[in-house]
Amino acid sequence: MVHPVDAQPDPDQRRDGHDHEDSDIGSAPSSRKNGDDFAPVYRVGAPPRLKLINEFKIAIKETLFPDDPFRQFKDQPRPQKIRLGVEGMFPILEWGRTYTLSKFKGDLIAGLTIASLCIPQDIGYAKLANLDPQYGLYSSFLPPFVYAVMGSSRDIAIGPVAVVSILLGTLVRNEIDDIKSADYHRLIITSTFFAGVFQAVLGICRFGFLIDFLSHASIVGFMAGAAITIGLQQLKLLLGIQTFTKKTDIISVMKSVWGAVHHGWNWQTILIGVFFLIFLLTAKYIGKKNRRLFWVPAVAPLISVILATLIVYLSRSDKHGVQIVNHIKKGINPSSISQLAFSGTLLVKGVKIGFVAALIALTEGIAIGRTFAALKDYHLDGNKEMLAMGVMNVAGSLTSCYVTTGSFSRSAVNYNAGCRSAVSNVVMSIVVLLTLLVITPLFKYTPNAILASIIISAVINLIDIKAAHLIWKTDKLDFLACVGAFIGVVFKSVEYGLLIAVALSFGKILLQVTRPRTALLGRIPGTNIFRNIEQYPDASKIHGILVVRIDSAMYFSNANYIRERILRWVDDEGDKIQEKAQMKLQFLVVEMSPIIDIDTSGIHALEELHTVFQKRDLQLALANPGRAVIDKLFSSKFVDTIGQEWIFLTVGEAVQTCSRRLKFDV
Amino acid sequence: MVHPVDAQPDPDQRRDGHDHEDSDIGSAPSSRKNGDDFAPVYRVGAPPRLKLINEFKIAIKETLFPDDPFRQFKDQPRPQKIRLGVEGMFPILEWGRTYTLSKFKGDLIAGLTIASLCIPQDIGYAKLANLDPQYGLYSSFLPPFVYAVMGSSRDIAIGPVAVVSILLGTLVRNEIDDIKSADYHRLIITSTFFAGVFQAVLGICRFGFLIDFLSHASIVGFMAGAAITIGLQQLKLLLGIQTFTKKTDIISVMKSVWGAVHHGWNWQTILIGVFFLIFLLTAKYIGKKNRRLFWVPAVAPLISVILATLIVYLSRSDKHGVQIVNHIKKGINPSSISQLAFSGTLLVKGVKIGFVAALIALTEGIAIGRTFAALKDYHLDGNKEMLAMGVMNVAGSLTSCYVTTGSFSRSAVNYNAGCRSAVSNVVMSIVVLLTLLVITPLFKYTPNAILASIIISAVINLIDIKAAHLIWKTDKLDFLACVGAFIGVVFKSVEYGLLIAVALSFGKILLQVTRPRTALLGRIPGTNIFRNIEQYPDASKIHGILVVRIDSAMYFSNANYIRERILRWVDDEGDKIQEKAQMKLQFLVVEMSPIIDIDTSGIHALEELHTVFQKRDLQLALANPGRAVIDKLFSSKFVDTIGQEWIFLTVGEAVQTCSRRLKFDV
Repeated sequence: MVHPVDAQPDPDQRRDGHDHEDSDIGSAPSSRKNGDDFAPVYRVGAPPRLKLINEFKIAIKETLFPDDPFRQFKDQPRPQKIRLGVEGMFPILEWGRTYTLSKFKGDLIAGLTIASLCIPQDIGYAKLANLDPQYGLYSSFLPPFVYAVMGSSRDIAIGPVAVVSILLGTLVRNEIDDIKSADYHRLIITSTFFAGVFQAVLGICRFGFLIDFLSHASIVGFMAGAAITIGLQQLKLLLGIQTFTKKTDIISVMKSVWGAVHHGWNWQTILIGVFFLIFLLTAKYIGKKNRRLFWVPAVAPLISVILATLIVYLSRSDKHGVQIVNHIKKGINPSSISQLAFSGTLLVKGVKIGFVAALIALTEGIAIGRTFAALKDYHLDGNKEMLAMGVMNVAGSLTSCYVTTGSFSRSAVNYNAGCRSAVSNVVMSIVVLLTLLVITPLFKYTPNAILASIIISAVINLIDIKAAHLIWKTDKLDFLACVGAFIGVVFKSVEYGLLIAVALSFGKILLQVTRPRTALLGRIPGTNIFRNIEQYPDASKIHGILVVRIDSAMYFSNANYIRERILRWVDDEGDKIQEKAQMKLQFLVVEMSPIIDIDTSGIHALEELHTVFQKRDLQLALANPGRAVIDKLFSSKFVDTIGQEWIFLTVGEAVQTCSRRLKFDV
Repeated sequence: MVHPVDAQPDPDQRRDGHDHEDSDIGSAPSSRKNGDDFAPVYRVGAPPRLKLINEFKIAIKETLFPDDPFRQFKDQPRPQKIRLGVEGMFPILEWGRTYTLSKFKGDLIAGLTIASLCIPQDIGYAKLANLDPQYGLYSSFLPPFVYAVMGSSRDIAIGPVAVVSILLGTLVRNEIDDIKSADYHRLIITSTFFAGVFQAVLGICRFGFLIDFLSHASIVGFMAGAAITIGLQQLKLLLGIQTFTKKTDIISVMKSVWGAVHHGWNWQTILIGVFFLIFLLTAKYIGKKNRRLFWVPAVAPLISVILATLIVYLSRSDKHGVQIVNHIKKGINPSSISQLAFSGTLLVKGVKIGFVAALIALTEGIAIGRTFAALKDYHLDGNKEMLAMGVMNVAGSLTSCYVTTGSFSRSAVNYNAGCRSAVSNVVMSIVVLLTLLVITPLFKYTPNAILASIIISAVINLIDIKAAHLIWKTDKLDFLACVGAFIGVVFKSVEYGLLIAVALSFGKILLQVTRPRTALLGRIPGTNIFRNIEQYPDASKIHGILVVRIDSAMYFSNANYIRERILRWVDDEGDKIQEKAQMKLQFLVVEMSPIIDIDTSGIHALEELHTVFQKRDLQLALANPGRAVIDKLFSSKFVDTIGQEWIFLTVGEAVQTCSRRLKFDV
């Protein structure tokens, strides 16, 4: 708190000629204490204290409700509050009222476009999870419906996605090797159920920030690795290999591929696969070059499927070893309630796998939602999204779906096709329903190779070389996390890569809190502003006074480091001064602005520094301690230890006061 | 970097009347770009870039060598370097050369004092580890010798300590229930060996910062809990109970005590125990009140032992159920090399237990060393201390010692008794040797109850109510960690409490990185300085411009939070403005000083903010980005996105530029 009487610039400052002008305010001398002529201009006092209960309320609010979800409820009558509450749960009630025909036109076109993209993708992704093709379609029918009612993103396209599919497939297969067994399917359904439960619980408890603990860099690496792994798996279908390794690491897969080169590759399959892969990639390229042709890559997969199916049907090349889909079960999602395992080892495994799948699905889905929400400037409540996705996956697990989330490729198409609301998801889901009811028999002669081509052309998007390059340029440590996760996925397995990603993310956080940066500050010529002398090479040091900035909160994890680092700055500076026979150091000013908080270990470190410096005739001064810090410095009596007159509002003032007290005879 | 041409205060600023005086420097107009009349005074450019290899070198140095251990080697000839290196390994070579008789006098007195304190404590502590009494004495003989040669603390007193003893006892007993078996003893020795190896390796690899991850608060709680647990264990000896629970939690122990009340308590034992406990506590009180009488509590334990032994010997009360020490094996430490287990389950268990014991022993020992080093202002290299303690424990494990470290109570006595160097440890260790060789038979009639009294009066020091109170006052979350660790130890077990302490310490770090503080800034009247309006209530906001400070680095773990929080500040302010029908917000200035670093997620959040604000006609301006931040903003092209003219050296300048561009008709 600035004491009103003291809150006046000191007229003495004018002599220095680099001070704040004070022409528009009174220049009455500030009140002096104990005849001390060098009292600082501002007294940095203790800020007004909060009551414990208020402090606690604020802490809870900032931790769990940082986005202030109850903002709109404020000062509303009770019925209005209830209405808003229900609308909060089911956003469709809010936007539904203002839904117009012109909006529907946009949604219809977008919905049809993503439907044409999702049907072949779904069939392929189901294979990644080692499931029959219809399960992919099931998962694109019910969950998008649920999301349309509860979700608040207008652009996301819901359904199975490649990374979650392969993750779920790998994790479940680790537990139950026989992918055709009933237990395998039961575990998939159980995991989906618990993934939904976890997502909903995280949303309700507002623990959404948990997904923020996966760093962007490690996600980039993980996704790229997953894309490579998924692409490698497609070689089986693309080359028509019959016996293939169950492992997903690149070495096992390549061995499998080369091992089959002489007797296992099928040239007809390769021909179809590679031809359509080139077709799809060309379509993608066209869509990228010309934004208005976004529909070209969007419909290309369906066209490829139709063409390839026709070719196989007409040439009967399935008789020559080209593998075909053969059979997709016709009809709407069957109930899967009886498949849920609520006891035994399947339960334990389901909970574990569900947790991992839940987090990855949320990480992908919410990142996508946020990206598009920022583009259109609407607010997306991460926690509400989690609840919506949780409910949609629980509902899915009761109706033979596996874990779904927002798909990156389809959401982008949805956005480009001009979707206006979640209605496009409904349109897509109706098209999928019709597919399930009517046209699944037509997929009989669809060659598996074309599905492989579609998956490869879809997952290529997940390899974000530009992002990786940007990470390299901005932070080498981040790049290490990115490469680590990538290598983990490609050379070992998806879950191993994920583990590396999480470990490196945490490691980075911990390293950063343990080893904060520090800097020597100098005065920028012609001002009273002090800045890092490495960043501003023309900033100059002041004889006899060392100004140090600590770029971090002072906690137990770094208090010892900071103490040693400050001592080293002082020692280094002392050496230089001795060399040049300059004035001895008499003051150490610590710029506290970046020290946003301090704990007992941090205060202890300051006390130790003060003790050491007193023995060396070096006075410690603090500049601009923040609210939390000054509060704790007062309550721990450290302010009394060093004296309140040594705490300043700015570095400039601290240096002025110190330089007036410099002794020149030492 | 400040471009020299631009680094001039803008003469226009004078109109505002709160600017930096520029009377002593030229007032030539700064160079304008694109005819923009509002160019800021300083261009904050990209700082000089470091080469990757240099950046890497600096990172390694700050992470592993923050205290610059090779400082003294700089610019020295090679033989000198070797000499310094050897001296660094064995500090005795350095201080030994200047060792004088007067110093020895101090060390002799201190050594004799701590010896008289350590002998009864050692016998008692051995019991905490479920070992025969002589093992405590063994551990006070060899390790202090080794430490005297390699350690750099002058005040620490080495030997067995209560917390490590009970921790080791509990952990080993969890694995091998029969404390009299050979395997139990082998596991103790093996764990000691690996504890030493871990300590030495941590020291050599300079991973000493690992022990900083236990927060001060949770250590206070853990130590207090351990003291209570140890005290409770002493009830067995103090009350003369024969059958006692093996568990250490307070509920099991109290049940055991009450269960034995009718047939298990021995009144003679209680009489002796309680009488001497009162005697010891009185002695402690006297020593505390009068610093010069420090020797009273230091010699009280030995006097108690002598008196109590005499009483029992004369009254033969051991015939009436008073348990006595009975037998301490005479003679010097036997070799225990053959006991080391280098294979099988004992090896695995030994590694695990050794790791935990190593960290706790280091935490206690190094904290003590640092405390006294600060009092006498000498430098203590934590990593070198770890190496010394590691070697001393490895040596100990070969000679029948168990894990030793610096003892808090004995180090304090050592310091107060006027020790001058580690020679006091040598004196103590010689006295212990003489005890082992000559007088162990005299301990035959020492009642166990007196050992319990000595332990209780020693561990009482570990309950630091003042520290806990300070923690409560400074940080409620810290206090929670403190209480959590305490409850974990007292109500469950020592290792459980330790786990809670570690988990809460990490949890606190993570919470703090996820939910950084933010603040609205206002102008302090009569200056151009902007500060938190909650801390400085007379700071005032500026119409149309919102100034926000983010108190943390922007990383993946908090980038989303920061983005949402800034949007909330803007929304909140927008509401207030609407209420008061004031000018619409047109500028958002973000004070970047505390943002010490940024990663790709953080830059992404800024980009999203910029996108959103552009839609709302709100201009984003950044003030004082630090070296690392501006570097990354440049390399990620974010500077180009918002325009370099929107990056300012100070908030004051940002606000001036913005206020001149305010549109008053909106």
